[in-house]
Order: sequence, then C-alpha cells, then structure tokens
Amino acid sequence: VVVENKKVVINVLPSGPLQDDTFRVVEESLLITDAVKDGSVVVEVDHVSIDPTNKIWLEPKKTYLKPLHPGDAMRAPGVGRVVASGSPRFRPGDWVLGADLGWQRYAAVRRGRGLTKLPAPRPGGPPPTAFLGVLGHTGMAAYFGLLDVGNPKPGETVVISGAAGATGSVAGQIAKIKGCRVVGIAGSREKCAWLRGLGFDAALDYRAPGFRRDFAAAVPRGVDVYFDNVGGPMLDLILGRLARGGRVVVCGAISGYQASGGKGEVAYGPKNYLNLINQSGRMQGFLVMDYTKRFPEAVRALSQWLAQGRLQHREHVVEGVENAPRALAMLFEGGNRGKLLVRVAAAAAAARQTASSSVVSTGEPGAEEPRSKL
Amino acid sequence: VVVENKKVVINVLPSGPLQDDTFRVVEESLLITDAVKDGSVVVEVDHVSIDPTNKIWLEPKKTYLKPLHPGDAMRAPGVGRVVASGSPRFRPGDWVLGADLGWQRYAAVRRGRGLTKLPAPRPGGPPPTAFLGVLGHTGMAAYFGLLDVGNPKPGETVVISGAAGATGSVAGQIAKIKGCRVVGIAGSREKCAWLRGLGFDAALDYRAPGFRRDFAAAVPRGVDVYFDNVGGPMLDLILGRLARGGRVVVCGAISGYQASGGKGEVAYGPKNYLNLINQSGRMQGFLVMDYTKRFPEAVRALSQWLAQGRLQHREHVVEGVENAPRALAMLFEGGNRGKLLVRVAAAAAAARQTASSSVVSTGEPGAEEPRSKL
Repeated sequence: VVVENKKVVINVLPSGPLQDDTFRVVEESLLITDAVKDGSVVVEVDHVSIDPTNKIWLEPKKTYLKPLHPGDAMRAPGVGRVVASGSPRFRPGDWVLGADLGWQRYAAVRRGRGLTKLPAPRPGGPPPTAFLGVLGHTGMAAYFGLLDVGNPKPGETVVISGAAGATGSVAGQIAKIKGCRVVGIAGSREKCAWLRGLGFDAALDYRAPGFRRDFAAAVPRGVDVYFDNVGGPMLDLILGRLARGGRVVVCGAISGYQASGGKGEVAYGPKNYLNLINQSGRMQGFLVMDYTKRFPEAVRALSQWLAQGRLQHREHVVEGVENAPRALAMLFEGGNRGKLLVRVAAAAAAARQTASSSVVSTGEPGAEEPRSKL
Repeated sequence: VVVENKKVVINVLPSGPLQDDTFRVVEESLLITDAVKDGSVVVEVDHVSIDPTNKIWLEPKKTYLKPLHPGDAMRAPGVGRVVASGSPRFRPGDWVLGADLGWQRYAAVRRGRGLTKLPAPRPGGPPPTAFLGVLGHTGMAAYFGLLDVGNPKPGETVVISGAAGATGSVAGQIAKIKGCRVVGIAGSREKCAWLRGLGFDAALDYRAPGFRRDFAAAVPRGVDVYFDNVGGPMLDLILGRLARGGRVVVCGAISGYQASGGKGEVAYGPKNYLNLINQSGRMQGFLVMDYTKRFPEAVRALSQWLAQGRLQHREHVVEGVENAPRALAMLFEGGNRGKLLVRVAAAAAAARQTASSSVVSTGEPGAEEPRSKL
C-alpha cells in the first residue's frame, strides 16, 4: 500500500530567529507494507503540538534530545491513529501518543518507539488532543513544576508569566486549587480577562502602560513563587520583588529563544539574580521527563479537577501541516490562546470536544476566530 | 577625655565603579566622656574587614542593611578594644567584634549595638582578627554556603571561584574535608600554587591562555556544586558544565559589583541559566545572617579543623585606616591574598598570630611583601 505523505522538513537550521527559509514542504510516497515489514508502526497523524522548546530543538547544541538536521521532518509530539503495524503492541485503529510523530501526515515509527497507546475517545472522556496538553507534557510541566519545584504553601503569592499559555494557565489554576494568591501575566486584555474568569486573583497585561506599577501593587508582600515561562527583563522585574525564601521555577524563557545564537544561551541573562542572596531565594529548573514515573499521579489529579470543573483548558488549533511553520512563528509572537496545536488529519475532529475544554480554531494563522466554547 | 579620631567617610556615592573622590579623610575630636554618658561604648578599632559587599553597601538601594549616605564613616565590621563604656555589658579592655565599627580609629557605638565580646587573645588561641575571617562572617559564609546550600556529597565535584579569597579558600578546604573533589579558580599562578598546597585537586588561573580547555578537562563528569564568588562570564561557563542535579551556591559576584549602576543589578546576567532546565539544577542564594543561631556549630567545627591543622587561612593586612579606600580597590583588582584587613590601631599587633594562619602585610597597597608565614 502506498500513501502520499506531506511533511514539513528542516531546510536550513536558523542561527538566530526563525526565517522564511527555515522549513520547506516535501511530498513523497510512503510504502506502508515495506515500513511494516521493517517492524515499524505507521501512524496517521491527527494533531501535533507546537511548543516553545521547538526553537531549542533547532539549535545544533545537544541538550536532552539529539540535535536535528536539515532534511529531517520537524520534531513534534503528536497524537494519531495506527494505520498499519509491524509491532505486536499496536493494532490498526489504535489511538497513540507519539513523542515524535513530526510535522507530517504519516509517521513510520521504528519499532513503535516513543508511542503510547491512548484510551479510545468516548463521550465525556478526554479527547486525544488532551494528551498533548493538559494531560500531556504541558500539564505535567505545570503540575510538577509548580508543586514539586515551586512547592507553594496556602496563602502564598504565586506569579505566573505566559499565564494564558498551555502550561501557565494550568499552573495558575493548580495554584488556586492549592489555596494560593495567583497573579497572572499575559500579553493582551483578552487573555487577562480569560485568566480572571479562571479565578486568577489578578491578571496583568505586560504590554499595558503602567504595568510595572500595577505589578508592584499586585504583590504587596512580594513573590513567594514565580513560575517563569518567559525569561528576559520580566524575570529581572520579579527577582526584584522576591519575598524572603522565594522560589523561581525555571520552566522556560520564550522571550529568549528567538534571539538565541545557537549556543543554548539566551541574549538577556537575569541581571538581578543577586537578589537571590538578599532574599535567600532560589531558581530551579526541571525537565518533565524527570517525573515520568509519577505521570499517573498527575494525570489522576488533573483528570479529577477537569471532571469537577475546577480546571479549564483551551486549545488553539491551526489547520493543516503546511501551516505548522507559521503556527510556530505565531507562538513566539504571543498570538495563540491556550495550547497550540496543528491539525494534520482531515478526519476524526469530532472526538475532540469535552465539557472542560474550549477550542479556538484558526484556518489562517493570524485570522483568529473562536469556533466553539463549550 | 578627648581623643583625636581619624575616619574615612563617604564623600560621593559612586554611581558606577569606585572613584578617587568616593571617600575622604576627616579628623575630628571625640569627647569620650560625653559619648559614655549617652550610653555608648567607645571602641579603639584594631582591624576592620574589607569585603566585596562593601561596594553593594554604597548603592542607594535598600538591601538587607540601610543605605549609607555621604558624611557617614564607611561601614565595616571590625575588632577592637573597649576604651570606655556606658553599658553594663562591656568594660574597658574588653576585646569586641563589631558589626559596624567603620573606617575609623575610634567608634562610639550607641548602646553597644552590634558588639560581641571576644575571648581575650591567648597563646595558641585564635587572634581577634580570626573573628573577621575564618571564625567570622567569611568563615560562616563558607561553612553554611557550602554545606547547607550546596549540600555536597562525598566524591562529588565542587568548583570554587575566587578560590584564593577569604571565603573561597575556606569553602574549598571544607569540601576537601567532606571528601569531595575540589577545583579552585583564582587569578594568578601564585594563588593557584597556594591552593594546591591546601589540598585542592586542581587550581586554575582564569587569566591563563587555555583556561577554558583546562577547565573542561578538570571537570570530566561535570560540576555538582559551584560555589560562586565572582559571577559574570565565569558563571556562564560553569552553568554550561553543570552535572545533573547540580547546585550553584550564589555567594557573591565580585566581577559585577564594580560595574553596577546602583540598581542592585549586575551588568552581566548569566545567559546560560536555562541549562538549569536541561540539568534539573538550581541556583540558590543565602545571607550569613540567616544562620546566626547556628554560628556556634560552625565556630566549633572550624576551630577544631584549625587546631588539627586541617584548615589553613591567610590574612592580608593593609596598614593604616587612611589606606582603606585603596585596599578596597585592590580587592576588586584581585590583588589580595586571603582575608583582606586594614590595621587601624598601632598597638596590639602581637596577639595576631596563630599556628594555623599565615599573614601577608602590606604597608603600601600594591607593594606586597610577605611578612610572616607561620
């Protein structure tokens, strides 16, 4: 059997910000029967996840994953359905989560490596895409980053940057559930309004005039836990307001990824880090994969909060794998609302809805328009 | 009774590096009888301590201590003898440690605030100056910073910058006592030779060609604990070599203090701090005063190691309070060897020697010449 695969591959590794020629679209035929003979599992990709770390993966530096090379389909976690399998672990029709399905319609995954079987979608249950977001790596980052690294106590002030993003919005809601005072920082009035609706005690638009003054007023007793998704001068502002014994959870630094010259360094290091001395504070990083063994604990807690209506999440879907590069650019411009996904397959969209999620769908990136809010 | 006091006061608060006009010398008469009537304790200052934090104290920003103002004698911890007392807690002749005796010959300390009585100097015992160094705030910083914040395990690799300084040299020796592999970084061949003599496994001159390569070779399994006294690009280098779960003890950042524009920020923030994510590492600051209640534990341990000959320390003494500004400048140029002190009083130098300390004395800063090495 032959299928026509469309994939978006790396054209030129960017030495700085993403460029128009960073990616290119390739169409090729995929011989499914040959792939299966090889022991591979062929997955029809349904959705892929677009994340800030995508930019880091494009750097030549070896980090926690192997460097990518020109010609490779861009790496992306995704969900999809098995169409053919050379592995006894997977059968055609199975829904799977893949650590790297990539920006493509069909992924031939050698020996099914990195694939996890998902529960079949059912009414009232989580859609497959939830395992790319609130029940996936962004939800895990929010859960373990906030609770394990940040260790917030009831009544403490927790500040979240990138608060309307996939990880930030979940981290903030978990902090509320744990009895903290939560201040979210995001990049538009609309995002801030959404955060207030989620129960954040304050939500501030960092692009608004008077932001720094409003921020100081919002944290009168200082910042006990800062869950940092953005880095840059914002990190300095908050280091300057750290409470005694304050903790900075280093989750990411989206403000710095675009500027990186490929050495794994950001262009702007926190000049105010010596306030860690004055306040006996700490900054701590973590990888979601450090917590693999404890994922079931987080999935249980998050699923329960979703079912109870105490946790909301939002997906922002860009249509078509060929639009993945533009979706990634949108992520860095702050244009997305909630977990950013690219829908690759035309079919199977029906199963994506649950009572606890709202979906924003974008045909053309930039031309955003809420499609449904359930 | 009237004594002639000579003091060095702040002339102009520097907005950047120290300037020639930052300090000026003032001579004035002090009416001891009047001071004592007021409840003050008058101390004849023997030695004062010169420390990297002195530069931070000159910034208008309120940190853990009140800002200084022009006309104030420069703040300095010191040791001296009580010459008159309006407090029942102190008697003339008592040796005292003062949190702020200041750059002056006589300090009238209101209600004896911040004064601690010291044991009278005796042969074989620690000299009063030890309480400004290895048994004082630099020793406490080394002890609690390394052991409590850094938490090194036997066999781990500990890297110390500013390793020939008062805090770094003690921290490195404690790490050796605790069974770690210790790499020291200092600014001259002579300093590195001294560190090797102290038992450091490796000592590297950061000014030498090939330093970065030699450093990489010296930490083949990465850096488990980095005790940072210097900040700047060195911090980035070491963040890039952090082992899994590595810890950065933020003790100071002498490379950045001179450049600070007075906002409490350093000019160079660590651009490589995102490696804390890749390595699940942390950076943590601390204040010596957080550990006040546990000082006796540290003094006991350090005194025992000194008596056993397992811990060496070195004092670098600059003569004359009028040379304190030049001593401070020397500290930032890396010219000192060991704990930098200014000898204020002409008398009482005899009691300063113990079997475990070596003393470098400098009449003129810059014209260094070992006076005794015991």
